[in-house]
Amino acid sequence: MIAAEQAHSSAAPVAIETGKLYVGMDIGGTKTAAVVIDAAGNLGADVLLPTAQGNDGVLRTAEEAMLALAKQTGCAVSDFSAAGLGIPGQVDSVRGVVRYAYNLGVESLELAALLRERTGVEVAIENDVTAAAVGAAHLMQLSGSVAYINLGTGLSAGIVVEGKPWRGSQGLAGEVGHLAVDPRGRLCPCGQRGCLETVASGSALKAYWPAGGEHPGWVLAAAVANGDADAKLAFELLVEGAASTVRAMGVTIAPEAVVIGGGLRKIGTPLIEGIREQLRAWEAESPFLSGFTLSQRLQVLPEGMPAATVGAALSPRV
Amino acid sequence: MIAAEQAHSSAAPVAIETGKLYVGMDIGGTKTAAVVIDAAGNLGADVLLPTAQGNDGVLRTAEEAMLALAKQTGCAVSDFSAAGLGIPGQVDSVRGVVRYAYNLGVESLELAALLRERTGVEVAIENDVTAAAVGAAHLMQLSGSVAYINLGTGLSAGIVVEGKPWRGSQGLAGEVGHLAVDPRGRLCPCGQRGCLETVASGSALKAYWPAGGEHPGWVLAAAVANGDADAKLAFELLVEGAASTVRAMGVTIAPEAVVIGGGLRKIGTPLIEGIREQLRAWEAESPFLSGFTLSQRLQVLPEGMPAATVGAALSPRV
Repeated sequence: MIAAEQAHSSAAPVAIETGKLYVGMDIGGTKTAAVVIDAAGNLGADVLLPTAQGNDGVLRTAEEAMLALAKQTGCAVSDFSAAGLGIPGQVDSVRGVVRYAYNLGVESLELAALLRERTGVEVAIENDVTAAAVGAAHLMQLSGSVAYINLGTGLSAGIVVEGKPWRGSQGLAGEVGHLAVDPRGRLCPCGQRGCLETVASGSALKAYWPAGGEHPGWVLAAAVANGDADAKLAFELLVEGAASTVRAMGVTIAPEAVVIGGGLRKIGTPLIEGIREQLRAWEAESPFLSGFTLSQRLQVLPEGMPAATVGAALSPRV
Repeated sequence: MIAAEQAHSSAAPVAIETGKLYVGMDIGGTKTAAVVIDAAGNLGADVLLPTAQGNDGVLRTAEEAMLALAKQTGCAVSDFSAAGLGIPGQVDSVRGVVRYAYNLGVESLELAALLRERTGVEVAIENDVTAAAVGAAHLMQLSGSVAYINLGTGLSAGIVVEGKPWRGSQGLAGEVGHLAVDPRGRLCPCGQRGCLETVASGSALKAYWPAGGEHPGWVLAAAVANGDADAKLAFELLVEGAASTVRAMGVTIAPEAVVIGGGLRKIGTPLIEGIREQLRAWEAESPFLSGFTLSQRLQVLPEGMPAATVGAALSPRV
């Protein structure tokens, strides 16, 4: 278990025990973050690199991240016992293949085998949100079942049961962003209508509030406070959609804890309190729903907690 | 594993191995079914009794069922190693307490402890639909994760992972009937609007087709074939709502298999093929959804297969 103060820190790497060292990596559309943890889960080195696109770009980025981590740790890449990589797309953890990671320019990539060839290190891969869910459950010390809801450019969830990822058939569990909840809702790029992602995601913010620019989540709360009507609508839809997502995960799997993560959580208190208030309003109308106590189970991933990288390091071993 | 021909038969009990004997019971709103299985899962005695209402009625019914099974088996009640009971409502399997089983007139009942006092036999209890899901996965030889969708008076699901029930926090997993999928839908008795149960359930059939009487599912297909407009609307809503339920379980947990059970499955081919066609139509519109291959994963619980009772007998031991 990584101590909370350590997990929250982005300061210089701490001394780590000798013995087995594991790499955890989160390969994002623009940046790749990677850490080293030891067998006890203590955090060591960490690096942040730009992600190169395409199959070769992704492989090269992952290799460079491992080289940088080794240099920072003062060891050779071959000293790492294993590497766990979180990556967007449809991930076959058994075969080590990632498919449809379109924001990385990847259609299909045998990532685990090819990175092992390049580095000599055992590699396991995991869907990035599932990895973050494993990391959040570990770092936040949540037992039982956990639904981790990632409010990013898209919307999806990771499910963890007693520390272990629930991947589902073909690694497709947690695609709750494409749950259709409004027959008259917007058409989703996925081909369905009224998906939760069409209201509760970064891409939805852009659609409803084009003036918000490339990173609308960063400036949304201020624009709402300033009375921007489009921003207000976008924010209200986001809050209601995120609360609907919590409710949907609630009535299907009844998790012990629900954690909100992803880039949009940086909107902060207005978002989280908005979601909680919406859940409370629904609970007040429905004694049935109130039995799930979702408004009480809701938590937010603390700022700076490296859930994605630590979860990636843990995923192959839980 | 119970052989399929045996499981389908409602004929006289077969000879069972000596050794440990387990009772499996399904306590329904009007009738209680119970069986004896041996340690190898072979089916022995079976009985069907009317269910008496209220706490004492339910206890008395369960005790009478065990006495009748003992008599049929030629043993004493105390010879049973354990009894597993499936019962509607919110079931705390750890404490052996069932709550809110309103169609049994039960608000709260310490069923496991009180039945053990009366019979001297270890008793475990399980939500009835979860028990049926365990039984269906076992009898249909389904591995991986299974979503069992119960189309009865209400709508709910049981989730099984590698033979084990996923109960969720407070035993509330699988309450997908109260997933809200239409903001302009009917008000549900649960206090929410547009729940799946308001279109895909026996109670929904009665609301949309009052002329269908007490058991509309039994006569629905014939009325649709005869051109009854209300029956046709009720049927279309049922099919679309059931397909939505399959889709919702798909995108949240991505099960390996989806099984349709419950009283309404007796509508038969028009219902199952209707659900499959709706799923195919959605898959044709959405390459994303087609990746879940739900139309191919869909199965129906075979007529006469005793999933609920066998699952109840297995639940405490899986």
